[in-house]
Amino acid sequence: MAEVKICVIGAGSAVFSLNLIRDLVLTPNLYGSTVSLVDINEERLNAVYALMRRLCEETGARYKLEKTTVRREALRGADFVINTALAAGHQRLREGWAVAERLGYRFGGSLHVMHDEAFWINFYQFRLFEEIIEDVLDLCPDAWYIQLANPVLAGVTLLGRKYPEAKIVGLCHGYKAVYYLASVLNLDPSRVEYTAPGLNHFIWLTEFKYGGGDAYPLIDRWIEEGAKQHWEKCAPSDALGPKAVDLYRRFGAFPIGDTCTPGGGSWPWWYHVDEETERAWKEDPRGWWRGYFSWLEERVSETLAVARDSSSRVVDRVALEKSGEDIVPLIESIACDVPRKLQVNVMNKGGLVPGFPTDFEVEVPALVDGGGVHPLEVKGLPRPVLAFALRDRVAPVEVELEAYERGSREALVQLVTMDPWTRSREQAERLVEKILALPYHEEMRAHYR
Amino acid sequence: MAEVKICVIGAGSAVFSLNLIRDLVLTPNLYGSTVSLVDINEERLNAVYALMRRLCEETGARYKLEKTTVRREALRGADFVINTALAAGHQRLREGWAVAERLGYRFGGSLHVMHDEAFWINFYQFRLFEEIIEDVLDLCPDAWYIQLANPVLAGVTLLGRKYPEAKIVGLCHGYKAVYYLASVLNLDPSRVEYTAPGLNHFIWLTEFKYGGGDAYPLIDRWIEEGAKQHWEKCAPSDALGPKAVDLYRRFGAFPIGDTCTPGGGSWPWWYHVDEETERAWKEDPRGWWRGYFSWLEERVSETLAVARDSSSRVVDRVALEKSGEDIVPLIESIACDVPRKLQVNVMNKGGLVPGFPTDFEVEVPALVDGGGVHPLEVKGLPRPVLAFALRDRVAPVEVELEAYERGSREALVQLVTMDPWTRSREQAERLVEKILALPYHEEMRAHYR
Repeated sequence: MAEVKICVIGAGSAVFSLNLIRDLVLTPNLYGSTVSLVDINEERLNAVYALMRRLCEETGARYKLEKTTVRREALRGADFVINTALAAGHQRLREGWAVAERLGYRFGGSLHVMHDEAFWINFYQFRLFEEIIEDVLDLCPDAWYIQLANPVLAGVTLLGRKYPEAKIVGLCHGYKAVYYLASVLNLDPSRVEYTAPGLNHFIWLTEFKYGGGDAYPLIDRWIEEGAKQHWEKCAPSDALGPKAVDLYRRFGAFPIGDTCTPGGGSWPWWYHVDEETERAWKEDPRGWWRGYFSWLEERVSETLAVARDSSSRVVDRVALEKSGEDIVPLIESIACDVPRKLQVNVMNKGGLVPGFPTDFEVEVPALVDGGGVHPLEVKGLPRPVLAFALRDRVAPVEVELEAYERGSREALVQLVTMDPWTRSREQAERLVEKILALPYHEEMRAHYR
Repeated sequence: MAEVKICVIGAGSAVFSLNLIRDLVLTPNLYGSTVSLVDINEERLNAVYALMRRLCEETGARYKLEKTTVRREALRGADFVINTALAAGHQRLREGWAVAERLGYRFGGSLHVMHDEAFWINFYQFRLFEEIIEDVLDLCPDAWYIQLANPVLAGVTLLGRKYPEAKIVGLCHGYKAVYYLASVLNLDPSRVEYTAPGLNHFIWLTEFKYGGGDAYPLIDRWIEEGAKQHWEKCAPSDALGPKAVDLYRRFGAFPIGDTCTPGGGSWPWWYHVDEETERAWKEDPRGWWRGYFSWLEERVSETLAVARDSSSRVVDRVALEKSGEDIVPLIESIACDVPRKLQVNVMNKGGLVPGFPTDFEVEVPALVDGGGVHPLEVKGLPRPVLAFALRDRVAPVEVELEAYERGSREALVQLVTMDPWTRSREQAERLVEKILALPYHEEMRAHYR
């Protein structure tokens, strides 16, 4: 048992915070800890705070809850800092997409344009990440900084390079798709073992075992016997859809979670060249995003409705079960020395994943315990997978970070020339100019000269 | 002085061999050495041998000349093995280009299709490189293997990974374009110092000094005051043309030699999207190649004419001056312990160029002396340059080598999907199928399954 201080930045995210508090309620090891909620949206902050407070009271979970709109207040004395904040909302993302679509951009491997890690979103995220980590180093330098907000890949790389003294770990639940695969194969999840390393949103199942034996033959059998049936009922752009299976056949390892779904940018482009091709592969990134945004809005309204309705008990309206997110388990493992193997995003120090630069983010398994996060070396990816990762993930992120660090509009254009849908330098220039010209991007316009 | 045995594979290349023998004649340090010429084309071999023998007799340069069509005979006891062989001739290259053009491919960053390192050329080169190095390790394991034949980048990587015990060094005269730059700037070449590291055919001027001071301001002044005039008289696709200057402006380092010219694949694609764009940048890769092929043919006919005309003296028809190639200087440095700084292509062992994989080729300066080739660490490239190198050079070569090593037609198609002119997976598949279907590619067809 340990009493720690957990600071949650972007706590107004109702869905996230509800998951967090449920996990905390179900983790008595952390009772007595302080949870300090930070958000600049005071209304949302108050609602989430009230919800969490009621849930604690109803369940008897002993947490000290605090709330503030002033980040630095909350950081003082923090042991864990969770960053889940999105600086620029989805409305701006979609307005940028509309501009890009008019210039010929499409979903499908367009990782810095037609993706939620678009350069006009990431810019504000980078700035926020830096402000937060600087505050952390100032006010609670020993705290673990837990990066949940996207872009995890570029964010961990940026911060890891610039603030090597900070204790940074990124979490992404994308790898849980291994359990989706296991469930479709009718496997008992407790008997599944796996390794799925790579870069965030680009991880591949390099080892897959069931009851100690190689489970890849079970995937092969499912592809022969069960996949067709699955594809008849699954939604478009499914993580186990025809595209994922085709990638597995071509690359020899199964792509996991967001690696090829819209959540990770629908890599690669060649399944998305036109609507007919997308239909043939049962892909619909546009519909996927529409579904995601409305799912999110619904969940937020639902959660806020519960928060605002103080006449009924929260426990009567919200199932009290673990969310499956790794944040609270990570905190418990470190704070209470409960060893766990978790999937983490860290710098590739010492070459954890062979073939990637050592000053770049990787996603790998780690042993987490009272001593902290100990990332584990893995055997590495098939060479062509590694090559595509260097080409489509590492290279653009390098250029994006260079653009950000130097405030270089030229590098931003170079980033866009790397997009699979760019057909001319002028097209890339036009996109950058048109995005920067949007009235609310004043600061970004001033930054990229 | 040292008497060594130099084995020249592909000696039937008349232009190359004439340069080599002139350099040897002008290097008395190596007199007494044996030069063993190997070629499978006996007629060409005999002509070149006769030419070299006459030049030695006329000048009194004491070399023992041998010739054979049987490689293994020549390798016995060799101290230096020069590989300049092209397994499949330019005719096949051009026939492949014609197929590719009908499918929509263009010159401009198309490094494995519309380039002389096309996959249907490289396949035969890789096989030959491996056969030679295996013979070297069998018959003269202490010999230095000097890779001149393209692809130097992929070849050194392939051999360096697979035969770590071999002493491999690649040479490419592309970096000499630094002296072209110096001459256009009216600089005394003996006072020029520079560093131009990278990958073969992708090197950038990271340091440029004149008389000890930074000489980049001289480039900037030339761009302001002299470039326009130069562009009026220079040929299209010049190494100092508007494209090179534009790349320098955008990336902050000057691209050297084949980095952006047709000889290196006319990187990057965006200066080549259509003929109008090419004209605007004074680019004409098609014309450049046409010029190159006919220059080569003329030089070969000329040299063979001299060789076959035994009525006149060679020295009367061939200027006896050093070629500027680094092969003989390298051999002299090692054989006679004459320290020199030379530009070499070696594995990136120990991270000579930061940011590149350590099991990949790099082009760097090296100290060469009696102890061998000692590559020097460099400061590294601007991050965006490094990013484009990972994306456009490292990633495709990784996939090409994977295709070659596994005989994987699928990986070959993946390689072509990386080409900037590929617009669909089907297009890439069609190109691979159509090239493999050419009647003379029987062996390659059998290899890539």
